[in-house]
Amino acid sequence: MATKNGGFVALLLLLSFLLSSPLPARCDAPLPVNVWPKPTSMSWAEPHMAVRVSSSFHVVAPSGNAHLLSAARRYAALLLAERYRPLVTPAVNVTAGGAGAGAGAAGRGAELGYLTLAVSDLHAPLQHGVDESYALEILPAGAAATVTAATAWGAMRGLETFSQLAWWCGRERAVLVAAGVRIEDRPLYPHRGLMLDTGRTYFPVADILRTIDAMAANKMNVFHWHITDSQSFPLELPSEPALAEKGSYGDGMRYTVDDLVSCAGEFWLPDASDWPSRLAAEPGAGQLNPLEPKTYQVMSNVINDVTSLFPDGFYHAGADEVTPGCWNADPSIQRYLARGGTLSRLLEKFVGAAHPLIVSRNRTAVYWEDVLLDQAVNVTASAIPPETTILQTWNNGGNNTRLIVRAGYRAIVSSASFYYLDCGHGDFAGNDSAYDDPRSDYGTSGGSWCGPYKTWQRVYDYDVAGGLTAEEARLVVGGEVAMWTEQVDAAVLDGRVWPRASAMAEALWSGNRDATGRKRYAEATDRLTDWRHRMVGRGVRAEPIQPLWCRNRPGMCNLVR
Amino acid sequence: MATKNGGFVALLLLLSFLLSSPLPARCDAPLPVNVWPKPTSMSWAEPHMAVRVSSSFHVVAPSGNAHLLSAARRYAALLLAERYRPLVTPAVNVTAGGAGAGAGAAGRGAELGYLTLAVSDLHAPLQHGVDESYALEILPAGAAATVTAATAWGAMRGLETFSQLAWWCGRERAVLVAAGVRIEDRPLYPHRGLMLDTGRTYFPVADILRTIDAMAANKMNVFHWHITDSQSFPLELPSEPALAEKGSYGDGMRYTVDDLVSCAGEFWLPDASDWPSRLAAEPGAGQLNPLEPKTYQVMSNVINDVTSLFPDGFYHAGADEVTPGCWNADPSIQRYLARGGTLSRLLEKFVGAAHPLIVSRNRTAVYWEDVLLDQAVNVTASAIPPETTILQTWNNGGNNTRLIVRAGYRAIVSSASFYYLDCGHGDFAGNDSAYDDPRSDYGTSGGSWCGPYKTWQRVYDYDVAGGLTAEEARLVVGGEVAMWTEQVDAAVLDGRVWPRASAMAEALWSGNRDATGRKRYAEATDRLTDWRHRMVGRGVRAEPIQPLWCRNRPGMCNLVR
Repeated sequence: MATKNGGFVALLLLLSFLLSSPLPARCDAPLPVNVWPKPTSMSWAEPHMAVRVSSSFHVVAPSGNAHLLSAARRYAALLLAERYRPLVTPAVNVTAGGAGAGAGAAGRGAELGYLTLAVSDLHAPLQHGVDESYALEILPAGAAATVTAATAWGAMRGLETFSQLAWWCGRERAVLVAAGVRIEDRPLYPHRGLMLDTGRTYFPVADILRTIDAMAANKMNVFHWHITDSQSFPLELPSEPALAEKGSYGDGMRYTVDDLVSCAGEFWLPDASDWPSRLAAEPGAGQLNPLEPKTYQVMSNVINDVTSLFPDGFYHAGADEVTPGCWNADPSIQRYLARGGTLSRLLEKFVGAAHPLIVSRNRTAVYWEDVLLDQAVNVTASAIPPETTILQTWNNGGNNTRLIVRAGYRAIVSSASFYYLDCGHGDFAGNDSAYDDPRSDYGTSGGSWCGPYKTWQRVYDYDVAGGLTAEEARLVVGGEVAMWTEQVDAAVLDGRVWPRASAMAEALWSGNRDATGRKRYAEATDRLTDWRHRMVGRGVRAEPIQPLWCRNRPGMCNLVR
Repeated sequence: MATKNGGFVALLLLLSFLLSSPLPARCDAPLPVNVWPKPTSMSWAEPHMAVRVSSSFHVVAPSGNAHLLSAARRYAALLLAERYRPLVTPAVNVTAGGAGAGAGAAGRGAELGYLTLAVSDLHAPLQHGVDESYALEILPAGAAATVTAATAWGAMRGLETFSQLAWWCGRERAVLVAAGVRIEDRPLYPHRGLMLDTGRTYFPVADILRTIDAMAANKMNVFHWHITDSQSFPLELPSEPALAEKGSYGDGMRYTVDDLVSCAGEFWLPDASDWPSRLAAEPGAGQLNPLEPKTYQVMSNVINDVTSLFPDGFYHAGADEVTPGCWNADPSIQRYLARGGTLSRLLEKFVGAAHPLIVSRNRTAVYWEDVLLDQAVNVTASAIPPETTILQTWNNGGNNTRLIVRAGYRAIVSSASFYYLDCGHGDFAGNDSAYDDPRSDYGTSGGSWCGPYKTWQRVYDYDVAGGLTAEEARLVVGGEVAMWTEQVDAAVLDGRVWPRASAMAEALWSGNRDATGRKRYAEATDRLTDWRHRMVGRGVRAEPIQPLWCRNRPGMCNLVR
């Protein structure tokens, strides 16, 4: 790059060279830079460049939104602290340069000093359907870096993406971030959730928060907290303290704030050979009795307290697996049935009281699909008007999704055969002679009602709106992977949830197909290995999906090359 | 206990009361005291008593065996530091008293100050078949506590049992240990192992050590280290440094000490629809070529180095899944076959060279069953004399065990359908369209060749000598659960191994049947929940087997009450 011009011009040229023409530096770079979920559109100018992140790097956020300011600080800290070392470390020519913090030491090039956030509607509230789109631009040579978004929530999505464009360069002992990058990104579905069951098993708050942090990193936006179930009631409610006092697993196993029941305390399966006579779908029998007046008193208190504790727009009112055997065993209900009542009308009595209460608190009620679709016990549409109701699927794959949307309801898809994360580890019931069998068990369920285990590919490939017309598909608001916890606690939580939840996260954010419309699971494999590696570095004990051997040998671990 | 005798006698009696009649104290006690594996015989005098463990508690061991002295210190420290809080904490009358450290403060009773080890043969070496039996006695009121054993290794088993008789009593702020206990214990099988595959995935040494510690707590006695495989060779060998230099996953992924191969680097499955034409059983092709002279040079160096590094009596020489397609694709082998050679004779050439080398180093060679039983490629018995050979099973359940013992070989049982811990999480191969299927996957394998996942009950109920005559059964030396690691690394290791390995540990230590000869899996459930809880407290992130709800309600979570 030497020049024969006069001294002054030479100096100018030299300065401009130092300031704007990136200096060559050899360093490791992830190939390609991996953002998970894959953005809707992304380009990285060739030849690939990176810029060093200044040790004083910060995020410039508009003031007025405390969450956004907090996120700005959090991500600036992450940028500098993470020191992510990619699995694949080929040496490539990565040019370094940059602006925003002034020139660095001679020969080192300039650095990226800050990222600017530009938000149109700073006060748009966080609710279902909020605009989460963003654009991210890091100019070549790092002259500037900007996230532009309609809302603070979109800006946070952009911050997460920005954090995934950075990595630690050991040779330079610096954080580098890709430069010459342009991203436009927006989710396909507004509801992208994880359901965690803290009724079967208590999870310390720290584990829940770590899970929520991991969800945010995956651009998931709904934490469906299945707080209570028949086994435990860990939620302290001001108006019903006895629920947690008597129902939690113990003093240290509650979530503070802070006569009723049929077949309570009964053995769940009186006759193992007669499944229809069961009192519950699994050990832990007991269903609210809709004939008991006190049921409604407690229900009302619970709804009031919970809607005060949680400002979210959706209230999940359950209603899955109403077991006829339990109600049929209750004397008061037997008398009701003898008078001409039906179990369906009994459920409708309950739902018919719960639903208006929920709506009066300005919430949309979410029920499991059973409330409408169960063969034996279901309610009429009048009890659950579509305008104020969303149904969550779990059974019969896309067929039930179709039934739901054709009935005019919005759907959250959690089909067990794809999205139930607990499947495949047998069943927790004891004294089960089925396992005492010297024959091969290949091809059997291994005890799990919804087995086999759903691999990340199974989760990834699922089309939540598969088989629907375009009009029907409009009612599918998204999906949730479900972590039922009969056999899961904090010791193993991360590995059961991640990275399989990441697979759904991408499918619902930017889809599971490439630009030609073909499923892109093959191409997603190495990206998910990289993303899983990154999550582990961030403290999430996610399960690996392939031996490391595969990551260094593209295609060699495929079934079909 | 008041008496009308004279003052002096009264004083004596009072003193004796204080010193020898335990004072009543209410405290939590695990019900019943849980030792896993369940001892061969154990009695706890009624009413159940416990004695406080002195803060100066120590283990008195004979000098002369450094391992035993180390264990004595380790367990004494564990007794005082563990502070195990049982899951089930009913308040029961547990009397406290004791001796060995003098009387404690008035009203607190005496304490247990030490445990004595008595060993007949202090210098018996640790090897296959060594005597691991022991007797443990803690006298009522803790007057004395003794472990008596034939060898130091049996004494260590007794120390572990002793540690499991202790728990933390919050109310007393003290460690208590059951008193009035008598145990006699010995293993059914001499070989009770875990195989860990560090060829597919590297595991940091700390994770391996933690695993070995957990094995010791479960009285398992064989760590089968599957150190290398086609994907990586992480073992640094002085005579063949290039193996780890080129074969490990990286500098930080080796186990220090500190032109050869067919189809190396080839894609493993040229035609996904033609399984017989595969070059390997899974991604990562390459088999040693027995026609290459250098193969024997390297093999010899490896055997010499490894037997120098590891003093154990068994040397595992592999020989599973020899893939015909790989050798058939090798030009030198094609020429050999054209001259009338066979793949079996080719394998026999290799094994015929390896076996004598192993024997010359005073080792017993262990091979996978395939070396004898594979349909396509196998050796004659002359290459693997039963006197110096043990075969490890993995296929076809008890049928192959029977074939092996009937051929006169000792067997280590690892039948995949029972003991393979990796089964049930799909397959790691990428670009697999089988997962892209909108239909239910219930009742399918979910991609795992050996699925479903083997539950602890499945592992527990397996009889490694099932279907054999008493004479045949004598050749079954034990079993190993196998942790293949294509999809497992340190982040999820503990949950995949434990507590399922514990299930095998008990079945092979004291069996899986009760005194009447019936399988005792139902009774084992709560005990395993307790043991798993204890292992978690000791730092092992074992998977839970039932919701906590079950532990407080005996029988309520059974399939059949």
